Amino acid sequence: MIERLNHVAIAVGDLAAAAGIYRDLLGAKVSAPQTLTEHGVRVVFVELDNTKIELITPLSDDSPIASFIEKRGNGIHHLCYEVNSIKESAKELNQQGCRILGDDKVQIGAHGKPVLFLHPAETDGILIELEEA
Amino acid sequence: MIERLNHVAIAVGDLAAAAGIYRDLLGAKVSAPQTLTEHGVRVVFVELDNTKIELITPLSDDSPIASFIEKRGNGIHHLCYEVNSIKESAKELNQQGCRILGDDKVQIGAHGKPVLFLHPAETDGILIELEEA
Repeated sequence: MIERLNHVAIAVGDLAAAAGIYRDLLGAKVSAPQTLTEHGVRVVFVELDNTKIELITPLSDDSPIASFIEKRGNGIHHLCYEVNSIKESAKELNQQGCRILGDDKVQIGAHGKPVLFLHPAETDGILIELEEA
Repeated sequence: MIERLNHVAIAVGDLAAAAGIYRDLLGAKVSAPQTLTEHGVRVVFVELDNTKIELITPLSDDSPIASFIEKRGNGIHHLCYEVNSIKESAKELNQQGCRILGDDKVQIGAHGKPVLFLHPAETDGILIELEEA
């Protein structure tokens, strides 16, 4: 089912500071910030040779990313793996009795592609996103 | 400085259960467990097309991985990025006043290559390993 690691998402309170760490301290290629109003976040992409790190900050206090930061501070929010088909993946997961977050409607993620999030209780407390490649 | 994401390390209390999640639920290619006595851990590698997930469990209660799990439960322990030269990276980090864990001696990591760990306070609380590619 999972093929590639699409990205590691890191929730941060100060996007400019976090981007600075990756650009200036770690010498990585870092995108300009992008506002994704529909998803309630502003993001910076750290472009590595084989995958991406996504630095994510909430646009408002009622975002789940804001709650995450309030509870735990800055930290890794989720891992996103690519799959061939979200519908097929959802079907396989359902057959195994694995809980998926939200209702059964396919969601469109921050990259404009179908995604789903597994309930973290199914995966050792780690939030996992699956994205259609 | 950083080029590729070498691996995401996940600390787990039950290695067989964690490996089962990746193999059976997520359909990934999962290695046999390997004991790295010198590093005090037993690991399973989840082989993705572009990078690896390393599931790590401590061999004894006095391991830093055991403390991590005791404090926070299973979770992402560190991210490892590849660099061309650990010596050059250490020099650049020192010039920027960035703290490195341990003393200034180059350590040999779990893959038999030179590594260093940045102090997590320098990188938004996330533990980052650099490994010579």
